[in-house]
Amino acid sequence: MPLDSPKDPKIAAKAALDPQNFALANCIRALSIDAVNAANSGHPGAPMGMADAATALFRNHLKFDAKNPDWPDRDRFVLSNGHASMLLYSLLHLTGYEDMTLEQVRNFRQWGSITAGHPEYGHAKGIETTTGPLGQGIATAVGMALAERRLAAEFGDDLVDHHTYVFTGDGCLQEGIGQEAISLAGHLGLGKLIVLYDDNDITIDGPTSISFSEDVPARFEACGWQVQKCDGHDGKALDAAIAAAKAETGKPSLIAMKTVIGFGSPNKAGSYAVHGSPLGRDEAALTREAIGWGYDPFVIPDDLAQEWRQIGTRGAKDREAWEARLAGKSAEVRDEFNRRVSGTLPHGYDAAVKAARDALFADPKKAATRKASQMALEPLTAALPEMIGGSADLTGSNLTRVKAVDSQYTRQAPGRYIGYGVREFGMCAAMNGITLHGGFIAYGGTFLVFSDYARNAIRLSALMGVGTIFVMTHDSIGLGEDGPTHQPIEHLASLRAIPNLTVLRPADTVETLEAWDIAIRNRHVPSLLALSRQDVPQLRLEAGDENLTARGAYVIRQFGEGRDVTLIATGTEVALAVQAAEALHGDGLNVAVVSMPSWELFEAQSDDYRQATLGDAPRIAVEAAGKFGWTRYVASEDDVIGMTGFGASAPIDRLYREFGITAEAIVARAKAVTRR
Amino acid sequence: MPLDSPKDPKIAAKAALDPQNFALANCIRALSIDAVNAANSGHPGAPMGMADAATALFRNHLKFDAKNPDWPDRDRFVLSNGHASMLLYSLLHLTGYEDMTLEQVRNFRQWGSITAGHPEYGHAKGIETTTGPLGQGIATAVGMALAERRLAAEFGDDLVDHHTYVFTGDGCLQEGIGQEAISLAGHLGLGKLIVLYDDNDITIDGPTSISFSEDVPARFEACGWQVQKCDGHDGKALDAAIAAAKAETGKPSLIAMKTVIGFGSPNKAGSYAVHGSPLGRDEAALTREAIGWGYDPFVIPDDLAQEWRQIGTRGAKDREAWEARLAGKSAEVRDEFNRRVSGTLPHGYDAAVKAARDALFADPKKAATRKASQMALEPLTAALPEMIGGSADLTGSNLTRVKAVDSQYTRQAPGRYIGYGVREFGMCAAMNGITLHGGFIAYGGTFLVFSDYARNAIRLSALMGVGTIFVMTHDSIGLGEDGPTHQPIEHLASLRAIPNLTVLRPADTVETLEAWDIAIRNRHVPSLLALSRQDVPQLRLEAGDENLTARGAYVIRQFGEGRDVTLIATGTEVALAVQAAEALHGDGLNVAVVSMPSWELFEAQSDDYRQATLGDAPRIAVEAAGKFGWTRYVASEDDVIGMTGFGASAPIDRLYREFGITAEAIVARAKAVTRR
Repeated sequence: MPLDSPKDPKIAAKAALDPQNFALANCIRALSIDAVNAANSGHPGAPMGMADAATALFRNHLKFDAKNPDWPDRDRFVLSNGHASMLLYSLLHLTGYEDMTLEQVRNFRQWGSITAGHPEYGHAKGIETTTGPLGQGIATAVGMALAERRLAAEFGDDLVDHHTYVFTGDGCLQEGIGQEAISLAGHLGLGKLIVLYDDNDITIDGPTSISFSEDVPARFEACGWQVQKCDGHDGKALDAAIAAAKAETGKPSLIAMKTVIGFGSPNKAGSYAVHGSPLGRDEAALTREAIGWGYDPFVIPDDLAQEWRQIGTRGAKDREAWEARLAGKSAEVRDEFNRRVSGTLPHGYDAAVKAARDALFADPKKAATRKASQMALEPLTAALPEMIGGSADLTGSNLTRVKAVDSQYTRQAPGRYIGYGVREFGMCAAMNGITLHGGFIAYGGTFLVFSDYARNAIRLSALMGVGTIFVMTHDSIGLGEDGPTHQPIEHLASLRAIPNLTVLRPADTVETLEAWDIAIRNRHVPSLLALSRQDVPQLRLEAGDENLTARGAYVIRQFGEGRDVTLIATGTEVALAVQAAEALHGDGLNVAVVSMPSWELFEAQSDDYRQATLGDAPRIAVEAAGKFGWTRYVASEDDVIGMTGFGASAPIDRLYREFGITAEAIVARAKAVTRR
Repeated sequence: MPLDSPKDPKIAAKAALDPQNFALANCIRALSIDAVNAANSGHPGAPMGMADAATALFRNHLKFDAKNPDWPDRDRFVLSNGHASMLLYSLLHLTGYEDMTLEQVRNFRQWGSITAGHPEYGHAKGIETTTGPLGQGIATAVGMALAERRLAAEFGDDLVDHHTYVFTGDGCLQEGIGQEAISLAGHLGLGKLIVLYDDNDITIDGPTSISFSEDVPARFEACGWQVQKCDGHDGKALDAAIAAAKAETGKPSLIAMKTVIGFGSPNKAGSYAVHGSPLGRDEAALTREAIGWGYDPFVIPDDLAQEWRQIGTRGAKDREAWEARLAGKSAEVRDEFNRRVSGTLPHGYDAAVKAARDALFADPKKAATRKASQMALEPLTAALPEMIGGSADLTGSNLTRVKAVDSQYTRQAPGRYIGYGVREFGMCAAMNGITLHGGFIAYGGTFLVFSDYARNAIRLSALMGVGTIFVMTHDSIGLGEDGPTHQPIEHLASLRAIPNLTVLRPADTVETLEAWDIAIRNRHVPSLLALSRQDVPQLRLEAGDENLTARGAYVIRQFGEGRDVTLIATGTEVALAVQAAEALHGDGLNVAVVSMPSWELFEAQSDDYRQATLGDAPRIAVEAAGKFGWTRYVASEDDVIGMTGFGASAPIDRLYREFGITAEAIVARAKAVTRR
């Protein structure tokens, strides 16, 4: 083996613990140093410190096949401390993932490369989720581990039996969402979730002792985890710890690894100076000597390269055996399994939607849209075994639980309904993980106002392009007495501002069903349903199969020929707009009422359609929320009947009246604009 | 004592443990039941379960004087589980806070009352912070406890020596922010923070065992807390536990109280049915019997009423002694203390701002606005000892640390700079607590994109009207290589959508200084500074004392007479707009460039000023962020030079070019609109 001995005696001592593991890990260290230096930007410290652990995991434990990266029964590997991205890119390159070429590694953090500053889902195979925003990796991994157990319960352990491994640093554990994930995983006894904690005593600002002095292993133990401690630079110790973690099947496992950040760097190891800055050329050279790495930048010697490639094919046998098992199943099981993991909808789905539609037209219902959502969920979850529901402790308010999913996910039996607890952020990240895992459509509920708590997980689903479904009820001051802390004002605008998220605020039972249908079909765009606490009449009464909500906006009522004014409304305010339009028409005006359940879907329509829908007449917008953003469709915020400040605590009718969101106010403004 | 014996033998056994405490607690239970019944809305379970603990605390420990609710050295009481609001309202009413009349209690959750569904800061004295969004109460309390120690370090224990008490339920501890708060408090050894945990095994969805099975006391111990367990219905045990918690001065204290939710209700106690729904008339009657309460709704017998009033005046002696101690101080100390707690700025402040301005005009600087912020902070923090800084582990990036605050807040010595750790939400809530405590102006930093993590704390500061200052750097794709996970896109829009928040995105060193000046003076509105990673030239070169940023927007450059087009830009894009304007003027067009650092401040200007600033010519907006909302100022989103989707990982110049945020693009669009 052409490796020099490490010049630094302390490093040599570590290397001696498991020389081959150390040599393989040096490949990661060297590539990480070189790529960060080339980009003159990035985080070398964590890849250098975690290289030994990553090597131990990939070499002897992680079940994967680099040439078949999408194999459904692969183990999942999540780099929760995403700034250590070069660790992952190095591993993918070394083990032979085809898209992770050396050229890509050289182009780390450059325009057009797949090697972004933080790992981006969809850029390269083997990146199981986007990480970087701290704490979300571990929470997303909890979702993956949840999904694995549920899928195994449905299809058997011979088809579904894989682990979820997470690398995490201090930051992920300081973030509150980390605790939400830890607590939920411990509660549900996710025995196949294994977290390797890079306990290096350093954060960007300096030693962790500036802000962090808790006993992390004790916290995990308090949350029901198996806990081990080991030397993070000792391949054999890591091996044994991972093996023991796999042997513990009733609890998730933490391996707290004592590591040195920037391991190998003579002048920067163990210091925050190596956290987020390149080593620089001189220190890179010194580091090469210290770790005994006598190769030029980006050069991996053949023997090590070959050994890494073998590691990358180690799982091929497992995959083949798995394929044989799948092939041995009945055609029915096989087809259903393949359907599920490919994310296609079953044949019966369209009929289920149509039957639900027809029933609404046959027997119109007045209902809160959260109730309409529950009504829609009944047949849809029955038709789609992949739907897995839940709520952040507001099941009775969100109305997310229905008959088909009425089996609680417990440590004993992974059912179809997850009690996420009062953990909105953890829930939304876990739902992303369930969706990313494959085989499921995850949905979960909380109050719209608490989308604030989960906001960055919603953002990540949009950035990744995964079809998680966020059910957000109590979507306006219509929430009533709970008051301004619980009444969303700015939330619709702030969610509409997120790229690639479909926000749906349906007006009645029919639009709510349509919204669900859109969300379910949208497997590459997340959807957020904003639903009411209070009842609304069914406005859509004319039978027909077209999903008008998919248009984003459409004329729901026309009073008279042509238009003197157009009223645009969403959700619960569409009924109010219709009421105002009737009054206006009684006063001789011609009025179109446009229901606009989704701005994003409307923007995707043709210019002609949008023009025809919005019309040329003056427009008024009506929404029981902040006015911000409505100037996209109306001339000024004066033409928005909405909120200008926070809400208040009082019964709903009083609130609408006091805040001037009334048919009278609409009529008055409509008359004013038609006189312009 | 005119109390019947409790009919329920189990309740009678509890009552016998401390009969007087029990009788006093029954007043709270009865008022809570009655008010929730009257509103037909609310959460009776927690007030009924925590009434005994609240009584023990207020009766024997809490240092307060109901007739002087603003006394600076009072203990702080935070009801983190804010849905138990009737507990607090009952206490305030019973102890004689003047504004909390019986009429207000009767009008619980009604329009115009001060008794909102959740306690709202500012509605009534004795409400130390707004709670309801779970977990934030405890995090805000951590800020109060931090502030107490720092103020004591400055003015001495004889002027500042009070405890911060928190009531919390399971929900606050399930929320991630709860853990952030617990971890930080333990790390900093906040010995005067005492948390009473209502361990009642119930959340809204049912038993906590649905989602929560961790060993909460062990988690607190892992985080460095003193932990006690006690019977939450035993006044004497509670007394002893609170006394022991006070005796522990080196660690924060948790008292885990086993309680029964809805204690006293024969058919609903111990069940989620009593969490968030009124008892109803019949169950209320049965409860009265069970607890031995023979009085009509809202009636408190004289002897108990009188005893409660005495509890409310118990602290008067302490207050008088404190006032005597304050009076015994030198005039200088007294004046400074009074200045600090009243939140007025010192005489030297204006001069410090002026000197800093003059220096910028004398010697203009090219600098990133985060650097400009640091330059501004140097003299301002030197002039204002009340400023207390910090960062969520991004000090070196946010540049929030300067000489005057260069003393780390540690458990040994409460300095002026807080390492909040990677805990953005906990930081922002704690900053609210520091500000609410009085005596301080708290500011703290993170990346703008991670405002997502802290969003609801920013919202609460706006709802409460407290002048917390959020420093958010790396405010656009200008962040560069870290990539789309770290590049804000929708964040400016989503923050501008929050009512009562001043968002400031300054363009250069001068505007940054002005922004800080605005934020510092705004003691009743929170401010958020969006600051750049990358350098910008100083554009404001003409000396003068007017804070133009306070106008929200103003003409920063005029090329030629009159206007063919107006370019509106914010932050780093103002320089770009100026560059484009120069080119346009070279091509014969007259152009005004409007710098618009704050939409909110601009909207507060007169119509005339706004009209004159915006002008009648076609307008182009330039901002390296999502276009959402800009239609307030321009005709359509086509006239916004900004982002339409997420960013990417690459060096900054490449990103601006690839995303078309260039002078050329501005010029092209300006020419197009002037040809309209």
